[in-house]
Amino acid sequence: MAHTIKDKAKLIARVRRIRGQVEAVERALEAELGCTDVLMLVASLRGAVHGLSSEVMEDHIRNHVVNPDTDPDPERAKGAAELIEVVRTYLK
Amino acid sequence: MAHTIKDKAKLIARVRRIRGQVEAVERALEAELGCTDVLMLVASLRGAVHGLSSEVMEDHIRNHVVNPDTDPDPERAKGAAELIEVVRTYLK
Amino acid sequence: MAHTIKDKAKLIARVRRIRGQVEAVERALEAELGCTDVLMLVASLRGAVHGLSSEVMEDHIRNHVVNPDTDPDPERAKGAAELIEVVRTYLK
Amino acid sequence: MAHTIKDKAKLIARVRRIRGQVEAVERALEAELGCTDVLMLVASLRGAVHGLSSEVMEDHIRNHVVNPDTDPDPERAKGAAELIEVVRTYLK
Repeated sequence: MAHTIKDKAKLIARVRRIRGQVEAVERALEAELGCTDVLMLVASLRGAVHGLSSEVMEDHIRNHVVNPDTDPDPERAKGAAELIEVVRTYLK
Repeated sequence: MAHTIKDKAKLIARVRRIRGQVEAVERALEAELGCTDVLMLVASLRGAVHGLSSEVMEDHIRNHVVNPDTDPDPERAKGAAELIEVVRTYLK
Repeated sequence: MAHTIKDKAKLIARVRRIRGQVEAVERALEAELGCTDVLMLVASLRGAVHGLSSEVMEDHIRNHVVNPDTDPDPERAKGAAELIEVVRTYLK
Repeated sequence: MAHTIKDKAKLIARVRRIRGQVEAVERALEAELGCTDVLMLVASLRGAVHGLSSEVMEDHIRNHVVNPDTDPDPERAKGAAELIEVVRTYLK
């Protein structure tokens, strides 16, 4: 993925939290918790997976397309910064 | 959840497959797989979580609101059958 | 749709606001407004269409499946109230 | 938006089709069509708005970040092509 070490650690921590949420859904089903509780856990899981999508896409833009913080072309840097903002809005 | 045993087993099997998909994303990040590969794995995970949402909601309708296959009121049974179809369309 | 007159009027007002948002996107494209402005207008439109989906589905549950406010069976009324809450969470 | 004339014409045609779909939902409500018919029209509208989001975002990437077909840097061109593919997958 050629991400910075810091980005990679952040993403892996996020994926592990998602694994914890999936396990919580599994336990809720095993324990025959109320349907609404299960649905609310699944809703949180959906939100977390959407957040992960957005972060991986942002990292891809920064590392493989244009990094808005370092690109020498100001127009392209602005376009990339706007794109990242839009990705966050749409994928949340 | 007071689901039938069969529904519960199906849902748990589905959640376990999702856990496997989360672990695949984690391994892909650890192995520094290409960004696009990671994004495609996350896209599959999103799809699977959407499918789970839809199935849990359908079970809730059948078990706690109106079961279209057994409800004695034909109008209400039709309304519930249509609702389930719509939930499948919207949540996929 | 056999909705109450009040529900119907509310839904039509909502659809007309959405038409106004679509026209705003069209004008923004015609006027060659900045891409980010167009994307933000489209994001608002998405949100409004999701809100409409949720409201039409809620009306369907109340009018054709189970109305949680009037159903004589307390378990079924509770199941329908929970379902409406969940639909709002998932479709927003 | 500084798009090519061709992109702009395509987007405006797409927005006009969406306006037609909104008007169809309005007519269906006015005519008190069945709830499921209304919900299916709203589902099509959602799909069309998601398609518009994806196309506007793709145009933004091509015109304001990196055009994969013309960028002189092959790595960056590849990153942008992958990004466009991913946007299409996620926003549909």
